Amino acid sequence: MSLLVVGSVAFDGIETPHGKVDRTLGGAASYFALAASHFSPVRLVGIVGDDFAPHDEALLRRRRIDLAGLERAAGKTFFWAGRYSQNMNERTTLVTELNVFAEFRPSLPQSYCDSAHIFLANIDPTLQRSVLNQVRCKPKVVGLDTMNYWIERTPAELRETLKHAHILMINDDETRQLTGEHNLMRAARHVFKMGPHTLVIKRGEHGALMVHNKFLFSVPGFPLEEVHDPTGAGDSFAGGFMGYLAGAGKLNERTLRNAMVYGSVLGSFAVEKFGVDRLTTLTRREIHARAHQFSKLTSFTL
Amino acid sequence: MSLLVVGSVAFDGIETPHGKVDRTLGGAASYFALAASHFSPVRLVGIVGDDFAPHDEALLRRRRIDLAGLERAAGKTFFWAGRYSQNMNERTTLVTELNVFAEFRPSLPQSYCDSAHIFLANIDPTLQRSVLNQVRCKPKVVGLDTMNYWIERTPAELRETLKHAHILMINDDETRQLTGEHNLMRAARHVFKMGPHTLVIKRGEHGALMVHNKFLFSVPGFPLEEVHDPTGAGDSFAGGFMGYLAGAGKLNERTLRNAMVYGSVLGSFAVEKFGVDRLTTLTRREIHARAHQFSKLTSFTL
Repeated sequence: MSLLVVGSVAFDGIETPHGKVDRTLGGAASYFALAASHFSPVRLVGIVGDDFAPHDEALLRRRRIDLAGLERAAGKTFFWAGRYSQNMNERTTLVTELNVFAEFRPSLPQSYCDSAHIFLANIDPTLQRSVLNQVRCKPKVVGLDTMNYWIERTPAELRETLKHAHILMINDDETRQLTGEHNLMRAARHVFKMGPHTLVIKRGEHGALMVHNKFLFSVPGFPLEEVHDPTGAGDSFAGGFMGYLAGAGKLNERTLRNAMVYGSVLGSFAVEKFGVDRLTTLTRREIHARAHQFSKLTSFTL
Repeated sequence: MSLLVVGSVAFDGIETPHGKVDRTLGGAASYFALAASHFSPVRLVGIVGDDFAPHDEALLRRRRIDLAGLERAAGKTFFWAGRYSQNMNERTTLVTELNVFAEFRPSLPQSYCDSAHIFLANIDPTLQRSVLNQVRCKPKVVGLDTMNYWIERTPAELRETLKHAHILMINDDETRQLTGEHNLMRAARHVFKMGPHTLVIKRGEHGALMVHNKFLFSVPGFPLEEVHDPTGAGDSFAGGFMGYLAGAGKLNERTLRNAMVYGSVLGSFAVEKFGVDRLTTLTRREIHARAHQFSKLTSFTL
């Protein structure tokens, strides 16, 4: 089943202890779409400027991502640049130029309006809601990401949008900030009252925790020997997660658990190379092999 | 099989957002021994002062912990006091009075000298080694804990003691500091060259990662709704881990994986109440029930 994602498409400048790139395809929707494309057809809603070249587009098209919803505006594409510390535990933002993204008003092409699986990447909650309003049928699964900026500045709008989301994917700090509750299990109960039935807490190298109103599931971070660039790990996780669910076509405990695993698989691959590079070369065989490594990493027989 | 532990026995003053105790039984060896006693007979080597009362001793004796190696010296028992922050993420040490512990020179009673399982809790590596030297037969499993203090101040002594340890149990930062390597997988290879074949990285609320030279195993932190007092969680983990191994009497991949789970079970119980309280009331049934909860928390079917 088709999976629609709305979010940023950007150029990124990235500096890590392993190297430097001045301008490479980035943005939450790019990472998400490339990761999800390994499991399900993906429809992208975003905006780029007139500097978005055919070879940038080709990276997405080669993974058969539907770009009917990728708007082209006069001006420059969203640009972000950041530098990671020696240990890659900290990231300093060097440049944020919103450019055409500042005027982004998502508009769904007719062909997207039957999307049953939707992911609202981290953008203004009002824009997230406007996408839901353009979808014809009630979607089966709506996933949502957000950040401290929206939790602080547009809390009422975010609350309104959350009413329509099934799965909230945020990190520990965002969970605590959104709910005003330090303990994550109690925080999850606050989230359930806001709308979602599932909270996925992304914890970077420590993996992810799913709190569903009926069960709990935890998946560790994959112990990698080389992390070249952490950019986009969370969006790749979300892409693997939602892509798996859309591909499975069923939302139950088993598919939710597996979605956590495949999300972690895609997140772990994403950081092995710079930018979206690893997501574009990944094979089905590699994905399944790593999923089985996750199984070995976590299984025990009492 | 019997499990010998050497380490601190102390009185703790603890303040958390959930309450305050002025003086309660503490110390690494106390937590370790009480946790391990649920799986195996335990022999304790430590030192206390003349203020160590019959009811303190009774807490350990009731769990059938062998105290033939608990030396009594003139003076006061080691006293530590600390305060946890509102979120319990940070701990401030308020008082450290080594007292009789400053002159601790471990001396094994004759009846301990055949111990096949040994845990060297976090003390001076020279004292850790003196315990190994007093054991008659070559022990089957030697576990070792240490901290930044010894890594910085007695690196040569620590290296010498590590040659005789099979399992090193430390946290992320200690692993990085000991090996000079940020990446934990590469750090583990350094550790293997120092002696141990297994590195257990304790990560608090994020669980624990085992890097064995033949396999990897990760266990999450147990998502608790109430943490009353984090003191002793790592020592209780070590006690559950080593106790399980001693009780199983076999050291193989299956028992090592299960040891990680039972270590996590004991660590998760320890923090539910103040001091060692929860470890003394715990039942076999509760322990196995939580081990099965860990299984539900982590299992998936691809």
